[in-house]
Amino acid sequence: MTSSDKPDHAADTADTPAAPTGVAAMEWAAAAADPQYRAAVVDLLGALAYGELAAFERLADDAKLAPTLEDKAELAKMASAEFHHFERLRDRLAGIGEEPTVAMEPFVAAYEGFHKQTAPSDWLEGLVKAYVGDSIASDFYREVAVRLDSDTRALVLAVLDDTGHGGFAVEKVRAAIDADPRMGGRLALWARRLMGEALSQSQRVVADRDALSTMLVGGVADGFDLAEVGRMFSRITEAHTKRMAALGLAA
Amino acid sequence: MTSSDKPDHAADTADTPAAPTGVAAMEWAAAAADPQYRAAVVDLLGALAYGELAAFERLADDAKLAPTLEDKAELAKMASAEFHHFERLRDRLAGIGEEPTVAMEPFVAAYEGFHKQTAPSDWLEGLVKAYVGDSIASDFYREVAVRLDSDTRALVLAVLDDTGHGGFAVEKVRAAIDADPRMGGRLALWARRLMGEALSQSQRVVADRDALSTMLVGGVADGFDLAEVGRMFSRITEAHTKRMAALGLAA
Repeated sequence: MTSSDKPDHAADTADTPAAPTGVAAMEWAAAAADPQYRAAVVDLLGALAYGELAAFERLADDAKLAPTLEDKAELAKMASAEFHHFERLRDRLAGIGEEPTVAMEPFVAAYEGFHKQTAPSDWLEGLVKAYVGDSIASDFYREVAVRLDSDTRALVLAVLDDTGHGGFAVEKVRAAIDADPRMGGRLALWARRLMGEALSQSQRVVADRDALSTMLVGGVADGFDLAEVGRMFSRITEAHTKRMAALGLAA
Repeated sequence: MTSSDKPDHAADTADTPAAPTGVAAMEWAAAAADPQYRAAVVDLLGALAYGELAAFERLADDAKLAPTLEDKAELAKMASAEFHHFERLRDRLAGIGEEPTVAMEPFVAAYEGFHKQTAPSDWLEGLVKAYVGDSIASDFYREVAVRLDSDTRALVLAVLDDTGHGGFAVEKVRAAIDADPRMGGRLALWARRLMGEALSQSQRVVADRDALSTMLVGGVADGFDLAEVGRMFSRITEAHTKRMAALGLAA
């Protein structure tokens, strides 16, 4: 999951946040004294860790569809980068005394469901999926990151660091649409389906995970209420729409 | 492709080599003045590079068969290690002015043929394949390495460095046979099939690639003749047999 050189992060368009207060001004040791905050962070790290492992598998799989050896190597590189992000998250979970697989387990079904519903049928669909999936996930975690304690925030932002996936996908997809403009319509439909499926799986997770959702609606971390969650999802959707337009896909 | 803590390397059982002479005593710059030696090394690096990329894909694929999240993460780690080996070989090819994909291309069919003929049907077959495949490849490259110029030799030995695959596979396979001794018979058959397919694909490569085979039979590098190639293959087969026996599989 990476940011990349895409035109908009949802978080960039949010109002400039005030200086951190509450949990956001604390380090992990202090913030984790609240057991509900701790549980929410363990959920968040578990979800992110399994997401990286699932992204590794998906990208390694998509590498098989690559039309050239260079493209294959590029996808393998992305997959390997996701794996290293996974390692950092897993080590962090272990470091705070949590069993990483126990933390990841609750999120397996949602990711598997998403990937099963959105298996790309060709190389370009795979690239669009990598780009859309990474961008949405990155936007979501950046939104959440500003409400986290400073240690957890630094880790989350580090694993979302740009590894250049976006640029590669954008370049290849744009070239394919230039070569065959009808491609644009098919890929635009595909991007809509990806966004719809991502939203539906996220809602499933939020409904299942009490500590996590409580944090999101302001029960623990500061500055989040239900209306704010609604605005967050709408910022993420807007950023997606802009990215698709920039890619030549009417979202 | 890695060595690992397996009981025997074929190369270990060979006679202690004399101090390097000829090409083996040279650095790359001097050795590469011979265009046939240069072509053989480009072949060797291309074959090794594509082998690493194919191993990455195979291990990432096998990760899907993993019974637990820990096992999945372990396979993903191996896959990622192979990818980093690939990067070093690709960068080396580029560094000596060769187009990496052109160097790899001639070996794609042999690797794909091998993997197509030996698709594991379950997790244990996948582990045995990872172990057997890595061990044979590692033995082969170690045998060849002692005949290479010092720079190429250092690179080849570095990418064969132990990343612990062997230990992990051995432990899991041994536990499975302990739990169900009938498993041993099935996996022994499987290991034989893997060895047979590896030999048949190697012969295909040797028949196709003039510079490489000339080096192997002593036309360029020192100390290799046709009888010696035969002895090398028999050392590799013997080492395989010993490894399988140590694993509880009659080869």
